[in-house]
Amino acid sequence: MTITTDPATMAGTEAGALAALFSPNAVAIIGASDDTRKYGNWLAVQALKGDIPVHLVNRTRPTVLGRPTVPSVTAIGSPVELAVIAVPAAGFEAAVDDALAGGARAIVGISAGLGEAGGEGLALQERITAKVRAAGARLLGPNCLGVLDHSSGLTLASNEFPVGTIGVISQSGNLALELATLLVDHGLGVSRFASLGNQADLDAADLIDAYVDHAGTAAIAVYCEDFRDGRRFARAAQRAAAAGKPVVLLTVGATDASVRNAKSHTGAMVSSGIVVEAACRAAGIEQVSSPAQMAHLLQALVRSTVPRGPRTAVFADGGGQASVASDSAAAQGLDVVEFGPALQAAVAAELPPTAAVSNPVDVAGGGEQDIMCFPRVLEHLNASSDVDATLMSGYFGGYGSYGPELAAREVEAARAMAASTAAHGGTVIVQTMNWQSAGAEALREGGVPVYRGIEEAAWALGRLARRQAEPPTGVPALPEPAAAVEDTGYYASRRVLAAAGVPFVGAAEVATEDELRQAAAGLRYPLVLKALGDEHKSDRGGVLLNLADEAALLAAWRDMGQRLAPPSCSVEEMADLSGAVELLVGVRRDPRFGPLVLVGLGGVFAEILKDVRCALGPVTAAQARDMLLSLRGAALLTGARGRAPVDIEAAAAIVAQISELAAAHPEIAEIECNPVAATPRGAQALDARIVLG
Amino acid sequence: MTITTDPATMAGTEAGALAALFSPNAVAIIGASDDTRKYGNWLAVQALKGDIPVHLVNRTRPTVLGRPTVPSVTAIGSPVELAVIAVPAAGFEAAVDDALAGGARAIVGISAGLGEAGGEGLALQERITAKVRAAGARLLGPNCLGVLDHSSGLTLASNEFPVGTIGVISQSGNLALELATLLVDHGLGVSRFASLGNQADLDAADLIDAYVDHAGTAAIAVYCEDFRDGRRFARAAQRAAAAGKPVVLLTVGATDASVRNAKSHTGAMVSSGIVVEAACRAAGIEQVSSPAQMAHLLQALVRSTVPRGPRTAVFADGGGQASVASDSAAAQGLDVVEFGPALQAAVAAELPPTAAVSNPVDVAGGGEQDIMCFPRVLEHLNASSDVDATLMSGYFGGYGSYGPELAAREVEAARAMAASTAAHGGTVIVQTMNWQSAGAEALREGGVPVYRGIEEAAWALGRLARRQAEPPTGVPALPEPAAAVEDTGYYASRRVLAAAGVPFVGAAEVATEDELRQAAAGLRYPLVLKALGDEHKSDRGGVLLNLADEAALLAAWRDMGQRLAPPSCSVEEMADLSGAVELLVGVRRDPRFGPLVLVGLGGVFAEILKDVRCALGPVTAAQARDMLLSLRGAALLTGARGRAPVDIEAAAAIVAQISELAAAHPEIAEIECNPVAATPRGAQALDARIVLG
Repeated sequence: MTITTDPATMAGTEAGALAALFSPNAVAIIGASDDTRKYGNWLAVQALKGDIPVHLVNRTRPTVLGRPTVPSVTAIGSPVELAVIAVPAAGFEAAVDDALAGGARAIVGISAGLGEAGGEGLALQERITAKVRAAGARLLGPNCLGVLDHSSGLTLASNEFPVGTIGVISQSGNLALELATLLVDHGLGVSRFASLGNQADLDAADLIDAYVDHAGTAAIAVYCEDFRDGRRFARAAQRAAAAGKPVVLLTVGATDASVRNAKSHTGAMVSSGIVVEAACRAAGIEQVSSPAQMAHLLQALVRSTVPRGPRTAVFADGGGQASVASDSAAAQGLDVVEFGPALQAAVAAELPPTAAVSNPVDVAGGGEQDIMCFPRVLEHLNASSDVDATLMSGYFGGYGSYGPELAAREVEAARAMAASTAAHGGTVIVQTMNWQSAGAEALREGGVPVYRGIEEAAWALGRLARRQAEPPTGVPALPEPAAAVEDTGYYASRRVLAAAGVPFVGAAEVATEDELRQAAAGLRYPLVLKALGDEHKSDRGGVLLNLADEAALLAAWRDMGQRLAPPSCSVEEMADLSGAVELLVGVRRDPRFGPLVLVGLGGVFAEILKDVRCALGPVTAAQARDMLLSLRGAALLTGARGRAPVDIEAAAAIVAQISELAAAHPEIAEIECNPVAATPRGAQALDARIVLG
Repeated sequence: MTITTDPATMAGTEAGALAALFSPNAVAIIGASDDTRKYGNWLAVQALKGDIPVHLVNRTRPTVLGRPTVPSVTAIGSPVELAVIAVPAAGFEAAVDDALAGGARAIVGISAGLGEAGGEGLALQERITAKVRAAGARLLGPNCLGVLDHSSGLTLASNEFPVGTIGVISQSGNLALELATLLVDHGLGVSRFASLGNQADLDAADLIDAYVDHAGTAAIAVYCEDFRDGRRFARAAQRAAAAGKPVVLLTVGATDASVRNAKSHTGAMVSSGIVVEAACRAAGIEQVSSPAQMAHLLQALVRSTVPRGPRTAVFADGGGQASVASDSAAAQGLDVVEFGPALQAAVAAELPPTAAVSNPVDVAGGGEQDIMCFPRVLEHLNASSDVDATLMSGYFGGYGSYGPELAAREVEAARAMAASTAAHGGTVIVQTMNWQSAGAEALREGGVPVYRGIEEAAWALGRLARRQAEPPTGVPALPEPAAAVEDTGYYASRRVLAAAGVPFVGAAEVATEDELRQAAAGLRYPLVLKALGDEHKSDRGGVLLNLADEAALLAAWRDMGQRLAPPSCSVEEMADLSGAVELLVGVRRDPRFGPLVLVGLGGVFAEILKDVRCALGPVTAAQARDMLLSLRGAALLTGARGRAPVDIEAAAAIVAQISELAAAHPEIAEIECNPVAATPRGAQALDARIVLG
């Protein structure tokens, strides 16, 4: 047992505090206990198994776990960089004071009943956090379950975790534990584990940052209920991905029930699913929906390359498996293309005459005849320009059970398969019912992911292919705030948007009949007259359409004045909507992730399809175009059933302009243009609404 | 080892032949071998482990596996009811002759290279099959992998299978093997296994029938590539479901690749996915997409009741698990409703104050304090009228690892949970990371399904709930064939459909201007004129719309005559399409499943939504109504965005009439009415097309 001291720690930097969290000179456990029902017991038991010196702090008992205790951290006599506090909430502040006085640079708050309880608990948590930060230290938790680093030998968690290369950051201890048991199936384990708890100080973004710089971590698994500063989270994940350490995220919030529960669990403010998806697309975060998916994807990410494209060879030892694997691959968007004649001939030459070779490949008993047919066929697939990736399915790994000689040959075959894949930089994903065999293990050791079930194997390959097909769009920077918008009436909103470049039909605000005549003279008939003031309401007769000439316009003006007496009206050119598709374009400011851009199909399609795309704002026109083209109903825009295609560039420009405007105005909670008319001859906003926060 | 002889066998009935297949007096293995690479070896090894007397037949070797052989079945000297043939295709017919001469009532054909090879192989297979049937015997295979019955002690397969209550019927040996390994995880096993092979004689429907009457089988798992007589298959599955033995089906055909492969594998004619789905909905078959899903669903079906509805309590020991389980349940269409105050209070009384009790329930450490809180809370959930089903998630089964006393208490808690569930006839599905623990085992023994992953647990519960929400519609009987339709020109088709009750707009076929005037006098303007003959083509100007009076009609007639010179025309009233929704209605005859009814939204929605429903025909008007209302775009029919609802009953009646017509005419390959206009004032077919087979 050696005392390691990171020089950065001494420098008093933030990095030093994080170094103290994962690699302290020593640990003090405040609240260490002999009571096996208490967290202070479990933590102490695990901590004592690690490589870092441990001090058990207990005010009343002279020994715990048969070891002498100290009554306080300050009583230890030398600085202890990391203190973990597992006392009731009422004693938390005193323990923090003691820890800071004793030299702690990092504090892990196990104690519950603080911020997540709201009210006084939250106020206390905030006061203590400020105190910790003022001392130049950092706080993990409170209401968290500990921290662990297998490279430093820190084991400050309630359970053991298997050793490996996955950095785990979790707002739930049990989910981290479940993930760990699943990683073991894949021959994987944990490099670091940090429990987030209430994220009073250190949040998920801080920890991702700390993991990026950790040599022992190859990929980062995050379970998070509250993203705090969502842009910071996304940027940290983007930095991790750029460093070759992809972030896999499990979060909640698809239902009222999970939102209710996260609030009660860690006081979390949960972001809506569409917002989190937008952040993930921007930052290259891989979002999953269960711990099992997390483990499946982590295996693929740490072992495999990303395929060049979706063309997938299915390679099975069994006709049923070949068919089911083909359908499973297709269900994940992969393309089980028929091979060209050269590849078919090359594969056929390695297999019995009953084998299927056009794709899927079914070795049809070839494995029993000669196990080395597997690497020989795989070499053809890896080398072929017909194939971007190979999905194997079936029985491989089980042939070895027929005898020791075959067992050795099967491992040799597995090594050859892995070597072929590595040599070609290929993508090979294997499913076999003999997933725990020596053959399977040899594949994994050689860098080939092996799965038990065809669904997860095909799913993981589909996700790898998506990484190639849909690279991250990047987390956009927010511009400096512009002068604040104050008036958000219809005309004021229109003016702000028009100034930002959004095209509207010709229009003017008029308060008198004279103004009306004058304005109309500069506009092209037919015109529209809208009552302003108490918002224009078409259901109250406040919008009169298709006014063909000045006589009709004046008649409409008088009628509107009599019925509604609006303070003013808007006189507008009537848009030519022939061939138009109505779009919804909006930006709203999310409390966690900032401006979110939404585009969708309007009119009856909005009702039926609920067809909306969302992105972190601001977006460029090119990104807006991709959003429009990824709508399920995009065929309407590109010319379905003989329609003329609409001017997508013009519509995309409007989306980009609105998103830039919103990004520069933190005071704006929402901008909505509904509808924007995209026509074959350009695009125009037909309405405008700005809501201040 | 005893020789059992079923009396029915002696009677020479088909049931007797099936009894001989699963419970023969003795087995002859023709082609038994010492070569460990041959099927005749594997089969003999497994067969000798069973309870049924085995005769090894080998023409050249006096011993195999150290046991004396006989040169032929006839040489045995007493009748042997079951013969399995594992010789090359060239020797298959002679072996069948020998088996029949030796008294075989059932033959299992392992030999490959027959029907699946097409051509001469297929002709030979057909001749042999006829010979077997003529002898009053039945044939399983050829190109199959054997048969097994754990109740009779017949083990005539290449591998061992775990003992249990799942009847397995498979067109792939490896998939059956994979399923078996997955069943073991769930504490399940196999009652019977039959490999289908080429289904030259016995097909999946025959085997389902045989399993329904098998006392040891609780549910039936089928992997099938070719349904042969699809209606018979569906009816057999329906009979199984009615007997409380649900059929779970894995099939292929979602992709060209799997269709290609199934053809090569067993010469299968693969049915398209939408057709198989329709058959499953009719017959109450549970379709799955992987062996793992099959095992997951089988556990739920054999252990659990079907919930009364979708209202689901989520009950977790961990905040993260509670949230993830809630989102997982919602993703499966389950409704994680907030509990009423009485249930919240009852649950809260059993748990620590930090517990969440509104749904999801998070015991928040309550398990560590008192493991019996689990059965107490579950009893409240099972008893509550707020809850239809409970989805547990988390750590249960792991508390026992803290010590032997707690381990015993945990098993006691599990038994109490199972007893509560049984007493209330409740539906409880458990997910726990400790899925192989004694606690989990006690739950399974008590009839509570336990899963490792939350996705499969939620998915299985969702499937159970769907059984309640969408009961099978029944496999419709086909009517006696009516007098055949011969003429299928536009007007002939229209007349046939109109005679069946399908309403069309008023119209008449006219060949001369006089006939036109006469016909028009009985119709209501505006009219439409369509050129007949070489089909009416609107893109060639063969349809002239909106002819307001006789002058316009005559002008159109002359114009059409000059330009197209059609042999005759159709003069029709112009339908009032205000508020109309265009529907596609069609029936096509599937070679496996007979008449299939298709309904969908027409027009631009067909392009964008690909929104079609399919059912086995004929359908009743009530079933047609349900199909229309289950379209994704059904809101268009029921009155989206202030539209008037259309007359769904009238549209449904048209669907039913067309489906009945098609069912009564086996010579009709396809009927299509596109569009049918469903309006607020009724529905009418605007076009008609009949295609003969």
